[in-house]
Amino acid sequence: MSYTYTRKVNYYETDMMGVVHHSNYVRYLEEARCAWIESMGIPMQYIESKGYTIPVLEVNIKYKNHITLGETIAIGINLIEYNGVRMTISYDVKDVKTGKVVIEASTKHCFTNKELRPVNIKKCDEEINTKFESIYTEYTINK
Amino acid sequence: MSYTYTRKVNYYETDMMGVVHHSNYVRYLEEARCAWIESMGIPMQYIESKGYTIPVLEVNIKYKNHITLGETIAIGINLIEYNGVRMTISYDVKDVKTGKVVIEASTKHCFTNKELRPVNIKKCDEEINTKFESIYTEYTINK
Amino acid sequence: MSYTYTRKVNYYETDMMGVVHHSNYVRYLEEARCAWIESMGIPMQYIESKGYTIPVLEVNIKYKNHITLGETIAIGINLIEYNGVRMTISYDVKDVKTGKVVIEASTKHCFTNKELRPVNIKKCDEEINTKFESIYTEYTINK
Amino acid sequence: MSYTYTRKVNYYETDMMGVVHHSNYVRYLEEARCAWIESMGIPMQYIESKGYTIPVLEVNIKYKNHITLGETIAIGINLIEYNGVRMTISYDVKDVKTGKVVIEASTKHCFTNKELRPVNIKKCDEEINTKFESIYTEYTINK
Repeated sequence: MSYTYTRKVNYYETDMMGVVHHSNYVRYLEEARCAWIESMGIPMQYIESKGYTIPVLEVNIKYKNHITLGETIAIGINLIEYNGVRMTISYDVKDVKTGKVVIEASTKHCFTNKELRPVNIKKCDEEINTKFESIYTEYTINK
Repeated sequence: MSYTYTRKVNYYETDMMGVVHHSNYVRYLEEARCAWIESMGIPMQYIESKGYTIPVLEVNIKYKNHITLGETIAIGINLIEYNGVRMTISYDVKDVKTGKVVIEASTKHCFTNKELRPVNIKKCDEEINTKFESIYTEYTINK
Repeated sequence: MSYTYTRKVNYYETDMMGVVHHSNYVRYLEEARCAWIESMGIPMQYIESKGYTIPVLEVNIKYKNHITLGETIAIGINLIEYNGVRMTISYDVKDVKTGKVVIEASTKHCFTNKELRPVNIKKCDEEINTKFESIYTEYTINK
Repeated sequence: MSYTYTRKVNYYETDMMGVVHHSNYVRYLEEARCAWIESMGIPMQYIESKGYTIPVLEVNIKYKNHITLGETIAIGINLIEYNGVRMTISYDVKDVKTGKVVIEASTKHCFTNKELRPVNIKKCDEEINTKFESIYTEYTINK
């Protein structure tokens, strides 16, 4: 089952249209992604101590409905592509109160080592790989 | 010929990786887009006085290289789709010093009126339409 | 007793020094202030429906220690001045894990009506006034 | 004479009140401060190559008037305290069109070395010290 991250909108995230500025969703996705990785039992400290980073290669967002101050969003996350070298994460962001889709998004990532060189996580970290692989398997089964 | 917007990186836009945080590019694109629209002779005040908004329907970014404090980016803009109802803008962001591509991006937009309803700008504002159309024609000729 | 707001640090809030960028604390204070006002039983929707705003007149921050990704802050809030026209809020921001003071801060505010004119909340909204006054009385007793 | 930094307001810096969100001024001050230090002939690269940082110890802002999209601010900077160990910078931010004061602000700083220990810049970098000292002398004469 997909992971869900819940989050209130802050005043400083609104713009003069009275709604959340579209750039902030990229930040919400990052928050959700970090919480999701921690929820797998991979603490950020572990990733850092190993010298890995998970850079963003691509961000794609379709804006469907606005949200504003006082509202809460639920970000559902799915790992829709994973091969140890690259992965694609999809996000489904909803207004908790109305159930309306706020944005649909995806991000693409690779894994890099201390020298910022791309690595195959299957070959260099069995612990992290097992966790991502099991999440991905679950996704492909439930799809 | 495409419009180019030039911009220095600010300290507060960097992250703990020592480079511009990936969310900031969405803001750089907006800055470039506003400057470009003003460069066509359409002041933001005119758009606002007419009650129009140009909401973002979609953002797509491919991250190619990092930039950091002290560096300057040049954002080249092209109007690659336009029909009065919707438009697609493409952005080519380069590191001015090295000439390297930093990101490649596109955004999709519509036009809305005071009631936030989508409008056909061809039908409701000849002045704005003529400007976008001429930019778009130029693009299709030079392509 | 003072209100405490707890909050994790986000990756996108760090800067190239590897710590939370100093500008973000102004946003953390706003988040804490909104949560505190809601905790008094004054929903943001009520304030908005009455046309009130509580603008920031002054921000003062002393930076004591850094925090970074993975850490959690606790923001203790006290209402240290209140007379219906103006108020001063003090904030004590601590690193939850170490107990170290991160920043000490205060903000000054007034109340404005629909026309953005300053108002005496004692005269125009007994409900809101009673709540702020009781919090302030509690502060002066416990001081 | 004091240094002046000029800057347009961006759309993404506005909030649901239709004006620049108060947290952004801390960022504007940083931008102005970096440009001012570079204008003294101290490139950021030089500071970094020496391993110095100039952390912010204190920020104090009085908000006087709002600004919004389409407007330009001019930030006048003065070095009002300097002794090699600590310095205080004052900022006078005006709306270029109306001449109205937008905010009045000051920031306090120290200098740190590679080990992030506070240093006396008089003793460890004559070049930087001479520049700050001459700016400060000018200020005390013209005051």
